[in-house]
Amino acid sequence: MTTVSWVEVSEEGGFGVENLPYGVFSRPGELPRVGVAIGEHVLDLAGLSAAGLIDDRRCFASGSLNAFMVAGPASWRANRARLVELLTDEAHRPRVEPHLIPVADVKLLRPFEVADYADFYSSVHHATNVGRIFRPNSDSLTPNWKRLPVAYHGRAGTVYPSGTPIIRPAGQRRTPGEAEPVFGPSLRLDFEAEVGFVAGVPSPAGRGVPTSAFRDHVFGFVLVNDWSARDLQSWESQPLGPFLSKSFATSISPWVVPVAALEPARVTPPVQDPAPLPYLRCAEPWGLDLHLEVLINGQVASRPPFASMYWTSPQQLAHATVNGAPLRTGDLFASGTVSGPERDQRGCLLELSWNGREPLELDDGTKRTFLEDGDTVTIRAKAPGASGSLISLGEVTGTVHPTPA
Amino acid sequence: MTTVSWVEVSEEGGFGVENLPYGVFSRPGELPRVGVAIGEHVLDLAGLSAAGLIDDRRCFASGSLNAFMVAGPASWRANRARLVELLTDEAHRPRVEPHLIPVADVKLLRPFEVADYADFYSSVHHATNVGRIFRPNSDSLTPNWKRLPVAYHGRAGTVYPSGTPIIRPAGQRRTPGEAEPVFGPSLRLDFEAEVGFVAGVPSPAGRGVPTSAFRDHVFGFVLVNDWSARDLQSWESQPLGPFLSKSFATSISPWVVPVAALEPARVTPPVQDPAPLPYLRCAEPWGLDLHLEVLINGQVASRPPFASMYWTSPQQLAHATVNGAPLRTGDLFASGTVSGPERDQRGCLLELSWNGREPLELDDGTKRTFLEDGDTVTIRAKAPGASGSLISLGEVTGTVHPTPA
Repeated sequence: MTTVSWVEVSEEGGFGVENLPYGVFSRPGELPRVGVAIGEHVLDLAGLSAAGLIDDRRCFASGSLNAFMVAGPASWRANRARLVELLTDEAHRPRVEPHLIPVADVKLLRPFEVADYADFYSSVHHATNVGRIFRPNSDSLTPNWKRLPVAYHGRAGTVYPSGTPIIRPAGQRRTPGEAEPVFGPSLRLDFEAEVGFVAGVPSPAGRGVPTSAFRDHVFGFVLVNDWSARDLQSWESQPLGPFLSKSFATSISPWVVPVAALEPARVTPPVQDPAPLPYLRCAEPWGLDLHLEVLINGQVASRPPFASMYWTSPQQLAHATVNGAPLRTGDLFASGTVSGPERDQRGCLLELSWNGREPLELDDGTKRTFLEDGDTVTIRAKAPGASGSLISLGEVTGTVHPTPA
Repeated sequence: MTTVSWVEVSEEGGFGVENLPYGVFSRPGELPRVGVAIGEHVLDLAGLSAAGLIDDRRCFASGSLNAFMVAGPASWRANRARLVELLTDEAHRPRVEPHLIPVADVKLLRPFEVADYADFYSSVHHATNVGRIFRPNSDSLTPNWKRLPVAYHGRAGTVYPSGTPIIRPAGQRRTPGEAEPVFGPSLRLDFEAEVGFVAGVPSPAGRGVPTSAFRDHVFGFVLVNDWSARDLQSWESQPLGPFLSKSFATSISPWVVPVAALEPARVTPPVQDPAPLPYLRCAEPWGLDLHLEVLINGQVASRPPFASMYWTSPQQLAHATVNGAPLRTGDLFASGTVSGPERDQRGCLLELSWNGREPLELDDGTKRTFLEDGDTVTIRAKAPGASGSLISLGEVTGTVHPTPA
């Protein structure tokens, strides 16, 4: 893909032909359908399909990507190649151009129906910081942490599209040292900057998905904000893990970046010591050089480097299925908070403010320990693409609204 | 409902007109559809509807109960009243009888599509036993346990209908005292006898479902076996709770018993001390006098009394939604293992064999610490119904198959 699109594309925008992420959009009075981002436009795949310009898979005039995601890698490859052809060969321009819609004119929706949602805990810097904050008198990493990618199941029904208002959750919390818990709006609302991948092709029960089969099942990547209520979390999480502190909302970005677009971003992940068990070994390097940025009210709060993640996506998938649990189309797996080794690379306020003890100062002089009502959190990311291009993962955003009276 | 059905119904069978649980069934070569159990028969609601004998809600010729569950309490009440009329008035017999199918001639399927699956931990006897087994040197109950109904999200995609083979999961375990974990089939496969309820009517985001609104949202109850791999569980669960040790399989019974059928089974639950926070208080008694039986290879292994549960179903639902998480149709909430105070009332082998130290002896002289390949576990339950009748919750069963090579 060294060719250039006839669609106007800014290099730094990250939506050239090397990317072509899939999403679902609507316009007033029209049904939702599948599109692909190119420059500042959405290419309407339902329209292209109806015009006979791409294969009619009966899956683009749909309110979700699920029908296309289940079609599998051969279909994904063929459609991607055809889209590149249509968008780079001037000969196709007259017939394709009518199906380009300015992205400003559409509403981007949740791109797929989430089947199950699991969230990992795969940044060694994040896990170490959290351990130091919450368990200062014991090892910061639990004994299992470097042996397996720790994870838990979240609530699929509250995975929301970017832009959905985030209502501050109420719940129980107990101040350390107090005997009685109290009930009320969370006082320690946080974001978590994460990257997720979504399964397209199901796997049968009783058989895991080995690390080598990652591309046969996974459709693409999204950005994830796993909103968290830290006060609820520290009170409720023993012995079965987080529940209400996470289940009120998880936001995902509208564009699903295909695995193929991120192949040039693959890098060698951190050395794993001790060596993982054989089912977690991976013949290829599957670190991903994604550069995340977290903005609070438009000001950069952190720049987490995804390449520093200890456990990689194929390892996460192999682990999640090694017990025989089948994959379903739409299964979403998030990485856990992405934090780098530096203070300004931490992916959540719990770490950035060290549990509220060291307020984070933003560029405009305002300070934050945790999120306030009205705050808008935006996570965006870029990665190296083919032919020296830049791949944008777009952004996921959400604004905090007060708990209803 | 003091009348008697013209369908032959044995009193001890528990499937009289006081019960009328809903399920989904199929016959060879026919599409799945909704039916109701009466005696030894299934009443075909799609057939009744096509014949104009019940309202055509376009939801009975369906492979799941979801369309009917979303219709809400007024529809549930009306349909129940009409079915009682049809099944007790001899005048209707000639037109209804053709829609009765011997249950032996049908295959019972998973009754509904599961949206999210959450599992509680609401038996004080179970939680105390588990605490004593795994944390012998600290308080058996965590500080939050009597303040809130502890729960975690499970995997909705592996909620299977009764009868689905249970493939022994593989995974990591570490023997206490050993430095290295090993990988292989679980050596401590267990069942958990539970009772679940399923939501029919969704609730909006940002608003919880108070205990008083339980009947406005919940369609009915099922039996649940939350299969568990104890060796995987103890190694993986810190700090985020169980994951692979639970996600391989959860089985549910085929008949969903309506809330209305269990009203006569409501009893005063155990006293809660300390008194729960206001959002967890319940004006009505919502203990349920369900008598569970667990059978291993046909021999009774335990008789857990559901009436001994510390947290009740309306409290569980109020808690799960108090953070603003909306309900979806098909959300399944399981109680957690039901254990009574007596040894022969414990709802899982972890407790029955005290983590393998005291093997359970079955009637035929065989002993079990944990489940062996080929073992069949069946959970069944009965409850008092209207007019002195008996309500059966049917049964959930599964046979353990070896891990594939």
